[in-house]
Amino acid sequence: MHHDLVAALDIGGTKIAGALVDGDGALFARVLRPTPAQESGERVMAAVSEVLDHLAASPLWPRVDAVGIGSAGPVDARNGTVSPVNIPGWRDHPLVDGVRRSTGTLPVTLVGDGVAMTAAEHLVGAARGHRSALCLVVSTGVGGGLVLDGRLHPGPTGNAGHIGHISVALDGESCPCGARGCVERLASGTAIARHAHAGGWRPRPGQDAGAAGVAAAAREGDPVATAAYTRAARALAAAISATAALVEIEVAVIGGGVAGAGEALFAPLRTALEDFATLSFVRGLTVVPAATGTDAGLIGAAAASRTLLRQDG
Amino acid sequence: MHHDLVAALDIGGTKIAGALVDGDGALFARVLRPTPAQESGERVMAAVSEVLDHLAASPLWPRVDAVGIGSAGPVDARNGTVSPVNIPGWRDHPLVDGVRRSTGTLPVTLVGDGVAMTAAEHLVGAARGHRSALCLVVSTGVGGGLVLDGRLHPGPTGNAGHIGHISVALDGESCPCGARGCVERLASGTAIARHAHAGGWRPRPGQDAGAAGVAAAAREGDPVATAAYTRAARALAAAISATAALVEIEVAVIGGGVAGAGEALFAPLRTALEDFATLSFVRGLTVVPAATGTDAGLIGAAAASRTLLRQDG
Repeated sequence: MHHDLVAALDIGGTKIAGALVDGDGALFARVLRPTPAQESGERVMAAVSEVLDHLAASPLWPRVDAVGIGSAGPVDARNGTVSPVNIPGWRDHPLVDGVRRSTGTLPVTLVGDGVAMTAAEHLVGAARGHRSALCLVVSTGVGGGLVLDGRLHPGPTGNAGHIGHISVALDGESCPCGARGCVERLASGTAIARHAHAGGWRPRPGQDAGAAGVAAAAREGDPVATAAYTRAARALAAAISATAALVEIEVAVIGGGVAGAGEALFAPLRTALEDFATLSFVRGLTVVPAATGTDAGLIGAAAASRTLLRQDG
Repeated sequence: MHHDLVAALDIGGTKIAGALVDGDGALFARVLRPTPAQESGERVMAAVSEVLDHLAASPLWPRVDAVGIGSAGPVDARNGTVSPVNIPGWRDHPLVDGVRRSTGTLPVTLVGDGVAMTAAEHLVGAARGHRSALCLVVSTGVGGGLVLDGRLHPGPTGNAGHIGHISVALDGESCPCGARGCVERLASGTAIARHAHAGGWRPRPGQDAGAAGVAAAAREGDPVATAAYTRAARALAAAISATAALVEIEVAVIGGGVAGAGEALFAPLRTALEDFATLSFVRGLTVVPAATGTDAGLIGAAAASRTLLRQDG
């Protein structure tokens, strides 16, 4: 019997996904449940257990030798707890212990969802083959993760690469995190839509009112929509350049819904990088779209688990 | 015969220092030459060779098994070249090849001066015993380096930790590097003095006109001087918090002349960190003064050499 599968969980504010994942990132026995995010912490944990029960019922389960969790953050890998912003019933919730009640003696690893996405991009996506990379998820929020020296860098608590809450405008708008001028306040899909609306942009009938609609308007030359993407692109460029100056990265991979804007985002982003990525050892940095899609969380939770257990063992 | 010494070089815009350094950071056969920074590149290289000749004449030389260079940056460890901003005659100067002409077959390593200082703080200073740290040199410029996962992180080109040129104010003042709102433009000694002067502060007769004089005035309650340090402290806090969010660090160590301001810098810095270091996994971060002094460059060039050669070998 090969022990070549990881039972992977991808836990977000809207859905809890599970699958058995092999070393190439192929998924088996997939399962998806809505997250009862507004209910009690016990109810959310029960949904996780249902997902695990589904996986354990698979005929492939005997091949599983580890459990890998990627969760909305912040997470605390040291204590095995999570406090996802969008799941109010979970504050310092002992997720790893809860999972162990279903999975017995299998080793369990936990990382943040940005770290998981990064592990997926490094295994099978746009960061594959790179010794160093920053991967970003630009969506309703902004998350990320790092590959350094050829390996995933989750950090001691599993939260490293948290680029959404670095400040690129120290006197800027205050952020719910408590700081000011965070990348997420300038570059998330929510921020792009808010900025366009504040500038007077309105969707045409039938057009999306969010960042996707703003992107469509920007492609048609709407100046307010273009300005909203330019502002987001400058914030991302400052943050990506900061990361490159701090740890030296070869490539920045951008996924998430806002990356779906395509050239509406990537064109001003390349221009802004010329302004901010000026140091000799940073100038070679390239920016590319993510290659993994909605499965990134599961593929990455499994890949991160393999990496972490290899480093421990 | 033990082979337990590294021949260390610390190359800056004003001086070139050399010593033989043991594994505990003790220095022997020290030598110092002024940097002929405004002369030709050949003249600067001749000064480096003089320093090496002095070291090679030491009776301890047979115990040397490696050469470690810390240089003003940017450096390019991959190609063995340096382009120090303050040494105009050296652009992509093949420093490692030049050193090899004096030192024969000994392995030679090269890192930036911020990385070298970090290696020294990790070996014998305030970062000792920490698994992760950011070390900053706040002086006429702002430099730095990183310890991650218990090891020095020089980055592939030897420049990682370059915190002086991350942008914390994307619409801020333009910086000679080409970007805007760089930490160095807000928090260097030069920037602090310039900001105080622009606000109308003037040194008393006999008082230092630079950052040290501004610190003295801040300690006496001068509001303009206080504001200059508060502004610098906020820029440093945003950058340190960004680093902690990106790679997870336990401690930030601050050295360089501006750290000599003591509480004039550290008090507003601790306050500003409460504003910016808000994420759960970042809040535990502490900020401490550097413990190594002017020898940090030599101790660190040697320590970095040991680390790099161990990783290669």
